Amino acid sequence: MTRHDPLARVRIVLVRTSLPANIGATARAMLTMGLTRLALVAPKRFPHPDATALATGATFVLDAANVVGTLADALAGTSLSIALSARPRHFAGRVLGIRDAAHEAITHAASGDVALVFGTEMSGLSNDEVARCSAIATIAANPDYASLNLAAAVQVAAWELRMAAHGGDVWNAPRFRSATHEDIEALYAHAQRTLEALGFYDPKHPRRLWPRLRRLFARAGLEHEEVHIFRGILAAIDDACDRARRA
Amino acid sequence: MTRHDPLARVRIVLVRTSLPANIGATARAMLTMGLTRLALVAPKRFPHPDATALATGATFVLDAANVVGTLADALAGTSLSIALSARPRHFAGRVLGIRDAAHEAITHAASGDVALVFGTEMSGLSNDEVARCSAIATIAANPDYASLNLAAAVQVAAWELRMAAHGGDVWNAPRFRSATHEDIEALYAHAQRTLEALGFYDPKHPRRLWPRLRRLFARAGLEHEEVHIFRGILAAIDDACDRARRA
Repeated sequence: MTRHDPLARVRIVLVRTSLPANIGATARAMLTMGLTRLALVAPKRFPHPDATALATGATFVLDAANVVGTLADALAGTSLSIALSARPRHFAGRVLGIRDAAHEAITHAASGDVALVFGTEMSGLSNDEVARCSAIATIAANPDYASLNLAAAVQVAAWELRMAAHGGDVWNAPRFRSATHEDIEALYAHAQRTLEALGFYDPKHPRRLWPRLRRLFARAGLEHEEVHIFRGILAAIDDACDRARRA
Repeated sequence: MTRHDPLARVRIVLVRTSLPANIGATARAMLTMGLTRLALVAPKRFPHPDATALATGATFVLDAANVVGTLADALAGTSLSIALSARPRHFAGRVLGIRDAAHEAITHAASGDVALVFGTEMSGLSNDEVARCSAIATIAANPDYASLNLAAAVQVAAWELRMAAHGGDVWNAPRFRSATHEDIEALYAHAQRTLEALGFYDPKHPRRLWPRLRRLFARAGLEHEEVHIFRGILAAIDDACDRARRA
């Protein structure tokens, strides 16, 4: 993460959190996605051994947390603040899905500081607290059981922020050498001879065998070494057929 | 959730989980996104009060969990299985970001059962376990601290599944019937017997034949009819070997 990483300008704000374990799990969830700025508004108990235990390798996020008395303090310096809310609010302003909210947050982070604000485990943010934020974000959930754990909600939000900032890089398995067109055609020619000798394939009644096999292997994209394996299997079958013929 | 909800055909598989609390938190994470089918492969301790405590309102997901001895048992009846892996694997087949994997899972769930497979807290899935799955999914994370908690990883995956299922429409390409896990394992078992009889494969010197073949066919995604073709070829080879042996 560099100072130009937009994630460096996004802070996570937890308001009046009850359980220290949730603060620790939040720090871990944040760091897995590259977020390090945590603000705690009037936490019930902090610091606390449970918080430290749950943060595992992310304790430096806890150590650097900004512990303040009011939401206004936590939002100081931000120019976009997004309140997370699971339930509809009567006087809500703009309500965004978390994916759109994350895109807006990352766009904004090019020029200013952003806060994502999470309420208490039991009742979320108060209407007053929501009203202090620029917009509301909601995480679409099972309407019959929308009860995301606090750190789980932070994990989803942090994931969406990272995807918005950096997209989803995937690691790639080492690439092996692709088979050439000639390799593959030679394989089909060999297979045709062998399967005919084996009595599995009758050129007079092909029953769409080759189009099906070609479709399968085209889908896979054969590698050089795989063609080699199949040629070896075909050669072994040829030997068995020879021995059987001599029987 | 109705019986036509594609999420109803997606199961979450936890392999050799150490901490009961993570099993409980996983059940909660699943249900928040509308997933209810949980399979536990050789959990260290289950049932356990910690699991029940962390599941809060989602205990019925725990009560209905399918506790089995092997990954093969957990994958029974599936035709697409996706292994979650944070670290690169040498013989990996297709590697997808979790967002693309979730889209593929939901598309597939229109016609067959799908499993998302999560390994242990400490070391994830073994290479053998990964090789039994059709594809790999990875959650892009902070390269300096990619240590998502198990239930947090399930939460992100479940969120992406829900977004893929209900957050946007996907069109479905016409699909042929996918081979089931049992079909495919029976094919490998048959191939092993036949290639050994053929003298092509020596169990004492396997030379990575099966990981390579599994990787190829996982990349392709075998269909029912294709398995049928290969079983026919193997049966024809068996006949030739019998005749050769009698020679």
